[in-house]
Amino acid sequence: MIIDFRIRPTTVFTGVPIYDPNFSKHSISIGAEPIESVKQNSLELLIQEMKEAGITKGVIMGRQAGVKSGSVPNEKIAEVVQKYPDYFIAFAGVNPLNINAALKEITKAINELGFKGVSVDPGFADEPLKADDRRLYPIYAKCEELGVPVSITTSIFVGPDVSYSMPASIHRVANDFPDLQIIVPHAAWPWVNEILGVAFITNNVWLSPDLYINIPNMPGATHFVEAANYYLGDRMLFASAYPIRSLKQSVSDFMRLPIKEDVKEKILYKNAIRLLRLE
Amino acid sequence: MIIDFRIRPTTVFTGVPIYDPNFSKHSISIGAEPIESVKQNSLELLIQEMKEAGITKGVIMGRQAGVKSGSVPNEKIAEVVQKYPDYFIAFAGVNPLNINAALKEITKAINELGFKGVSVDPGFADEPLKADDRRLYPIYAKCEELGVPVSITTSIFVGPDVSYSMPASIHRVANDFPDLQIIVPHAAWPWVNEILGVAFITNNVWLSPDLYINIPNMPGATHFVEAANYYLGDRMLFASAYPIRSLKQSVSDFMRLPIKEDVKEKILYKNAIRLLRLE
Amino acid sequence: MIIDFRIRPTTVFTGVPIYDPNFSKHSISIGAEPIESVKQNSLELLIQEMKEAGITKGVIMGRQAGVKSGSVPNEKIAEVVQKYPDYFIAFAGVNPLNINAALKEITKAINELGFKGVSVDPGFADEPLKADDRRLYPIYAKCEELGVPVSITTSIFVGPDVSYSMPASIHRVANDFPDLQIIVPHAAWPWVNEILGVAFITNNVWLSPDLYINIPNMPGATHFVEAANYYLGDRMLFASAYPIRSLKQSVSDFMRLPIKEDVKEKILYKNAIRLLRLE
Repeated sequence: MIIDFRIRPTTVFTGVPIYDPNFSKHSISIGAEPIESVKQNSLELLIQEMKEAGITKGVIMGRQAGVKSGSVPNEKIAEVVQKYPDYFIAFAGVNPLNINAALKEITKAINELGFKGVSVDPGFADEPLKADDRRLYPIYAKCEELGVPVSITTSIFVGPDVSYSMPASIHRVANDFPDLQIIVPHAAWPWVNEILGVAFITNNVWLSPDLYINIPNMPGATHFVEAANYYLGDRMLFASAYPIRSLKQSVSDFMRLPIKEDVKEKILYKNAIRLLRLE
Repeated sequence: MIIDFRIRPTTVFTGVPIYDPNFSKHSISIGAEPIESVKQNSLELLIQEMKEAGITKGVIMGRQAGVKSGSVPNEKIAEVVQKYPDYFIAFAGVNPLNINAALKEITKAINELGFKGVSVDPGFADEPLKADDRRLYPIYAKCEELGVPVSITTSIFVGPDVSYSMPASIHRVANDFPDLQIIVPHAAWPWVNEILGVAFITNNVWLSPDLYINIPNMPGATHFVEAANYYLGDRMLFASAYPIRSLKQSVSDFMRLPIKEDVKEKILYKNAIRLLRLE
Repeated sequence: MIIDFRIRPTTVFTGVPIYDPNFSKHSISIGAEPIESVKQNSLELLIQEMKEAGITKGVIMGRQAGVKSGSVPNEKIAEVVQKYPDYFIAFAGVNPLNINAALKEITKAINELGFKGVSVDPGFADEPLKADDRRLYPIYAKCEELGVPVSITTSIFVGPDVSYSMPASIHRVANDFPDLQIIVPHAAWPWVNEILGVAFITNNVWLSPDLYINIPNMPGATHFVEAANYYLGDRMLFASAYPIRSLKQSVSDFMRLPIKEDVKEKILYKNAIRLLRLE
C-alpha cells in the first residue's frame, strides 16, 4: 500500500504553467523519464500507472494561484474524485489574495465536496506571500476550526527568491495554530536542516519532501533520511509530485533510500492514513 | 579525562520547565535512556554516574530566564560547587532584561563565588532576544573586562522561532568583542553550516554541539564531524546536556563518531582546560 | 586541460591585505602547503607551477575594494595578460561605491584591454554591500549590455557577518538580469544548500566553490559534489583561489572528489570555455 501525497492529473491541471513541459527552465536537468499518461493526457492511463507503481491512492492538491501561476477549479478536481473515489483524495486550492472567497471555498469543499484538506501556495500568489503573511491567517483559522490539515507549498520554486521558503514562516504558523496539522510539500528545500529543525520542535508539521528526497544526488537529501531514521518517522509523507516525475521512478527512487523498513512503511502510507483519518 | 561542558543537576534546577519530563513536546522522540539520578533526584547518584561514564568534571550552566523559562539562584549552584569542588565548575546565569542586576550578579559570581564564566539564554528571556540585542552588550563587555568566557545558548529551542538561532547574531557579537571567548551550546542547530562558517572565520567562537553531534542520525551532525576533523578541533567542546540525555549514553554516542583520536581528546577535555585555564 | 577560474599572482596583488600571510586569523588552520612562487613572489615560477599542476589557463580576478580590503589597478593585470596571453585571462575589478568610475573602467577593460569579464566584491567595499544593493545594478546592467559575465565574490569572508553571503541577494540579481551570466566564487559558503537551490532554479548562476569543495572535510562540500553529479555539472567551475592554496594541492584535492569523470572534465575546463567563449 502506498499513498502518494502529491499527484496532479494533467487532465485537470491543464493551463497551469508549471506543468507545461516548455515552462521550466531547468526541466532538462531534472533527469525525469518520459511519462506516457502525460504524453497522452489520460486519467485512465494515470490510474494504470498508479497500479503498476503500487500506489493505492493519490492526493490531488488543488491550486488557486492567480493569473501568473494558474488556477484549477476545485469542482474539476471533485469530478475526478467522484469518478474514481478509490484512487483519489482531494485538497482544495484557495487563493489567499481573496480571503472572503477562500473561506467560502474551504467550507464548500470540506462540507459539500468531501475534500480532506486545503492547499495554499503563498509564494505563487500574484503578489507573492510568505507562509506567515497575515492574509493567510483566516485560512489557517478556518482549517483549524474545521479540523482539516493545510498544505503549504514551500520550496525554491515557490516565491520570487530563496528567502520566501525560509522555514521561520512555517514555524510561526505552527506556533500560532497548535491544533492545525501542517503539511509542507517539497519540505522547504533547499532549507533542509532548518525545516528539519522546525519539524523537530513542533508536533504539527509534516514534511513531504517528494522530489527533494526521491531524486538521487539531491543536495541535502541525506539529512531528510537522517531525520526519518531518528525523529521524523511519524511525520514524513511520501509523494511523487507527478507529473514532474513519474510514479514508478518516484517509488523506486524512494525505495533505494537507506531508511529503516518500518519507517518506510510509515512514510509510504501509515502516516497518511493517520493524518487523513482514512480508517 | 572528560570535561562535560553542560550538566545540570536536577536537585539544583528544580522548577525550570525544560527539565520537567512532562514539558517537552518532543521528549518521546529524543530516544533517551532513563536516568537513575534524575528519577531519584540525587546529586550523589549523579556524581556516581559521572564516575561511571568517565566524566571528571561537569560545567553547571546557570539559568536566569525569567518567569516562563525558569531561573535558578546562582547561590544554589555555588553550594554544589563548594560541596563538590572536584566535580563541578560553575557559570553564572544572568537575566539580560535586568541589566543592572545582571552586572552585579556577574561581578559577585566571578569575584566572590569562584564562578568561571557567565551563561545567557537570550531567546528564553520573557521578551525573547537575539544574541546581538543591545541589552546583552553590557553583559558581554563585563565578561570581556573580567576575562571570563560567556556561554550563549543558541538552538531551535531557544527563541520563539528558528530565526532566533540564526548565526549572524553570534557573528556580530564575536566581531564586536574580539577578546571575549564565546561558547555556543547546542551550536546553533539547525543552522549547522552557518555556525560552522562563523567558527571558521572567527577565533573566539567555541562550539559545544552536545546533543546535536552526539545523537545518532541528527540531521547535519556529519558537518560538525567534518569541521572537527578539519579546522575546529581546537574550539569544539564535549557536553552531554544532562539531564536531557544520560552521561553514559552521551559519552558512548560521542566516542563512536568518526573524529580523529587526537581531536577527540581535545574536544573531550583539552580545549576545556585551555578555555577555563584549569591548569 | 584545466582552466583555473580564480588565480591571483602575488606580483600583481601586492598590498591587498587578504593575500598577506599575516592577515588571516585562521590561516594556520587552512592546512595549506607552502607555495614557492609566493615565497619568491615570482610570476614565472607561478607559470611553472601551473604547468606542473596541469593548469592551462588562469583567470585573474581583479579587485577594487577600497581602502580596507585593497585594490589593484586593472592596468597592472592587463600587463600580465599581455605578457603571457597563453596563460592568463582577466576580469576587471570595479568599485561599486564609485558608480561612474566603475562604468568607465568596465567599458575600457572590455573594449580596450581585452578583459573577459568583471569582478565585484560587494562585501569588501568600504561600506559593505550585499550583492543586490542598488548601487551594483548599473554595473550588472553594463555587463549585460556588453555581453560579459560578472563575478560576485560571496562567502563568509566577504562582508562583516554571515548574513552578507545569504544567497537571496544573488538570486534577486539573477532574476533581475536574466541574460547576465553570474559567477559566484566561493559559492556563498557556508550557505551551501541555499546557493545550490538558487543554481537549481536559475540558468545564469555559475558556482566556483574553489576552496570550499577542494579542501578535505570542508563542512557541506559533499552537497556541492551531489549537485555536480545531478544538475550542476554544466555550471560549476574549477578554481584554486591561489595564493590561498597551491595549484598542485588544489588540483589533487579536486581530483579525489567522487564526481563523475565526464562531469569533472566539464568543471575543469569545458564549462569555462563555453562561458568565456574561448573557442
